[in-house]
Amino acid sequence: MTKFYRDGTISEQSIAPFDFTDRGLLLGDGVFDTALVLGGRIFRGDAHLDRLFDASRQLGIAVDRGAITRAAEALAAHGGPGVLRTTVTRGPGPRGLRPLSPQRPTVFASLAALPTNVVFAPLTLDIAAIRRNESSPTSRLKTLNYLDAVLATAAAEAAGFDETLFMNCAGRVACAAAGNLFAVRGRQIVTPPVADGVLPGIVRAFILTECGGLERSLEIADVVAADAAFVTSSLRLIAPVTRIGDARLASTNNDVVRELQKRMWSAIDAECGITLPLPGGSDEGERLR
Amino acid sequence: MTKFYRDGTISEQSIAPFDFTDRGLLLGDGVFDTALVLGGRIFRGDAHLDRLFDASRQLGIAVDRGAITRAAEALAAHGGPGVLRTTVTRGPGPRGLRPLSPQRPTVFASLAALPTNVVFAPLTLDIAAIRRNESSPTSRLKTLNYLDAVLATAAAEAAGFDETLFMNCAGRVACAAAGNLFAVRGRQIVTPPVADGVLPGIVRAFILTECGGLERSLEIADVVAADAAFVTSSLRLIAPVTRIGDARLASTNNDVVRELQKRMWSAIDAECGITLPLPGGSDEGERLR
Repeated sequence: MTKFYRDGTISEQSIAPFDFTDRGLLLGDGVFDTALVLGGRIFRGDAHLDRLFDASRQLGIAVDRGAITRAAEALAAHGGPGVLRTTVTRGPGPRGLRPLSPQRPTVFASLAALPTNVVFAPLTLDIAAIRRNESSPTSRLKTLNYLDAVLATAAAEAAGFDETLFMNCAGRVACAAAGNLFAVRGRQIVTPPVADGVLPGIVRAFILTECGGLERSLEIADVVAADAAFVTSSLRLIAPVTRIGDARLASTNNDVVRELQKRMWSAIDAECGITLPLPGGSDEGERLR
Repeated sequence: MTKFYRDGTISEQSIAPFDFTDRGLLLGDGVFDTALVLGGRIFRGDAHLDRLFDASRQLGIAVDRGAITRAAEALAAHGGPGVLRTTVTRGPGPRGLRPLSPQRPTVFASLAALPTNVVFAPLTLDIAAIRRNESSPTSRLKTLNYLDAVLATAAAEAAGFDETLFMNCAGRVACAAAGNLFAVRGRQIVTPPVADGVLPGIVRAFILTECGGLERSLEIADVVAADAAFVTSSLRLIAPVTRIGDARLASTNNDVVRELQKRMWSAIDAECGITLPLPGGSDEGERLR
């Protein structure tokens, strides 16, 4: 049962009073964060809440860090395994684009059951017709403007794919609708830089700072010719990509990908004291305590 | 006092029960329309409601045309002069990008006072650093993904401009944050085609179908070298552009612009039986009945 946090209280009711002048609803004027909750802890919680706070500030949303932390931690304390979503909007305002001054940001959150079947699970990627607009700050922030991702994902599913891969307006590889893309060649692990229009993902940062990953712009030809590719997200963690459009990739059997999954799995175990199922039936991953 | 329509009732309370799983709030998964209400009538009401319904359908939102009409007409009947905003979202859904099936779209609307000082009023345009992404269907629909417009407008105002002008990713002129752009050269009136990433505006359609306007891709050099330029929107109607970045335009004294304003004014008078103030103190526009 999904739990909702609003105004300091937790409820299982999705319906509650809301201000219909809220700019989050009317203009997509806000940001959010999705994080994994295990054993009452948010995995990489500080990184998630810092990023949400920084994104709010980049948009000029005058939210308190404390309000974000309170919402997230109140729900995380309810356990898991779950998916925590924390949302910040610029709050209510008058008609039009100009915000209320001073702002009264809205913060709310939800904790849903973790769909464990997607964790570490392989996936196929369609190539989206819609480009990722790297000229917009929203390409680097997890904003409420998710319609391109909704539309591209629906198109991918209609074409028989699991997920979609965006190129940016310069024609370079950007990211999946809900995750960062990495290409593996030999021992080299590469992902596009944030400037190419991608979110600075939390699992992406784990690969870059703790597993020797590198930032470099990628052409689609580089990725389909790679030894392997994978998508990172706080929900899928490290998902091997088995197909991009017509090109097949042997990512599920790749030693580098498998090693990264194990390091991720160990990092979660170390931080949350919980093991997650690893694909391929390795013993340590069979149970989800 | 702004009036709100929700679930068949009208209220002056902005706060009301709302489903916090609504995809309009969580993902910007919806569309809206802004129209002028005068004398209890929505100016070009059928065109507005058709466009909102078509946009919903283009996004795959299974809304009834009747639900849209009921919301809009219930508020319009309350009079005006006002700004009617009608919003359609894909409705509540489970966590993630995949929608609920069958969908239960949400429709709500508001009627705010008309800021009469912006109607026909001249404005200055900054050139936005953010590009309009013509590869996305959202560039041609009035979706809830308005953050680029919010950010670019804030940047424009910080730089001393009234509004902002977007180029598209191909470097051509697209539109203002809240309106279409037209350039005038001699008797020729030109605006970018929808394919360049612009909304098929209702006032834009009036200029194209009733006043001899033409669709043609525009470079910024064409616009700053034009005799005049103007922005159309259902709220500003026809707003002469006096400056774009550093370039000044004599749009307020341009006979073609003045003539278009008068034709627009007459069309409103004919349809709604109401006269609006024209800039420059012409007698017929002094009163707002």
